Amino acid sequence: MITIPEMDTEQYIKEVCKFIQEKVEQSHTKGVVLGLSGGIDSTIVAYLSVLALGKDHVKGYILPSKTTSKEDLNDALLIKDLLNIQAETIYIDDIYDSFLQTDGTDVDDKTLAQSNIKPRIRMTLLYYYATLNNYLVIGTGNKTELNIGYFTKYGDGGVDLSPIGDLYKEEVKQVAYKLNVPENIINKSPTAGLTLNQTDESDLGLKYSQIDKIVYAYTEKSMKTMDISKQLGIEHDKVESIINRIISSQHKRELAPIFKKK
Amino acid sequence: MITIPEMDTEQYIKEVCKFIQEKVEQSHTKGVVLGLSGGIDSTIVAYLSVLALGKDHVKGYILPSKTTSKEDLNDALLIKDLLNIQAETIYIDDIYDSFLQTDGTDVDDKTLAQSNIKPRIRMTLLYYYATLNNYLVIGTGNKTELNIGYFTKYGDGGVDLSPIGDLYKEEVKQVAYKLNVPENIINKSPTAGLTLNQTDESDLGLKYSQIDKIVYAYTEKSMKTMDISKQLGIEHDKVESIINRIISSQHKRELAPIFKKK
Repeated sequence: MITIPEMDTEQYIKEVCKFIQEKVEQSHTKGVVLGLSGGIDSTIVAYLSVLALGKDHVKGYILPSKTTSKEDLNDALLIKDLLNIQAETIYIDDIYDSFLQTDGTDVDDKTLAQSNIKPRIRMTLLYYYATLNNYLVIGTGNKTELNIGYFTKYGDGGVDLSPIGDLYKEEVKQVAYKLNVPENIINKSPTAGLTLNQTDESDLGLKYSQIDKIVYAYTEKSMKTMDISKQLGIEHDKVESIINRIISSQHKRELAPIFKKK
Repeated sequence: MITIPEMDTEQYIKEVCKFIQEKVEQSHTKGVVLGLSGGIDSTIVAYLSVLALGKDHVKGYILPSKTTSKEDLNDALLIKDLLNIQAETIYIDDIYDSFLQTDGTDVDDKTLAQSNIKPRIRMTLLYYYATLNNYLVIGTGNKTELNIGYFTKYGDGGVDLSPIGDLYKEEVKQVAYKLNVPENIINKSPTAGLTLNQTDESDLGLKYSQIDKIVYAYTEKSMKTMDISKQLGIEHDKVESIINRIISSQHKRELAPIFKKK
């Protein structure tokens, strides 16, 4: 049996709030800015930030593009209202287009290269407003995403602190329930919003509840692909594809290597 | 006496080329892209990359803006010609303006926040072309800059490998001489190019030859401000300002802290 140990959600919330408070104090900043996507991850980080710092020390930025669904946009606005925080909406399409306009190459498939531009635009905007206000940029990546490298290096991965980076996606849900996050946000299909109607789980070929267990078994229990496949009843190829993501994204979780002279 | 130990420049060049080769091989990529600013740092990284990988595996990008001096632009073009590498020129002003246009706030001084946008635009463009071609982004930061935090987090600091991150600025010059880099590039005043006619040394209040020694004494010899000031004959306040830069930029040299659940 592969079972991720149960967490004490209430205790976690207390401790992560302390972590957020400490990082803000240590850096002599006044609060945190974050991107509100309408998804569960940024929603719980907004809730935790308000709990930790108070609503006047949390600034949300809703940064949609043409490929953002109406549902996500509305959910982001709902969170702004529920938490009663300042949260500006800025469409990023013009900036995105200005990037594309500089490209005169005729490569066949630009999908992957283009997909990383929007998260980097959002990072740049968040840091712009963070610096204007002397705030930190708080990250919204969870443990599952970070481990399989399902984020953009120096994009959504470019943050000052990572409060939920040790929570598997299913644990994020538990914390969301505890925080009384609206149920539709908890239960909708997670999406990176890179293309319209994209969902993470169709992209990755497995449900997050399964991916969580594969990541746990591989990274925390050092189990082999074959055993994980058998114990979870998931095809070998699919388990392998997740493990390959973990291995090939190692560089995204490390500092860039510096050559040391002898 | 505070003396940075002499380096064997020839040996260094051999070893750093091996480092570049290894990183490209390990990542199953075809080469490296880099931003060519016309400054000494990106120039020697271009030379070393060509030595390591051959000119067909190095793509330069010259990414000027209105605040780039004609001299720097011409020097970048000169390096492209001398090394006979592919190097496209892309002005980034339109992208920069599209960022500024989204800002409706009325903060008094936006200089610092704005100054980080251009390095992040350059990072985003370099990764765009790196991903299109299956190349790595090679960094051009030197040890002095990295230690005093004189770079933009997730901007020019956002790279895949850092070949000269262990070379003090004066050591960069030694390597440049060994590589036969044009003398005018070696001897001109270093500039981050953030505003026209800006020079690093006027910004920092000291010459790089002095800053190198302060960084060395503080980080590698654990010396106190008072002793460094006395031994180098540099005012206490100026030594302190450099040491404060080292301390306050610690977060730029580390991964964002992740809160670990108990």
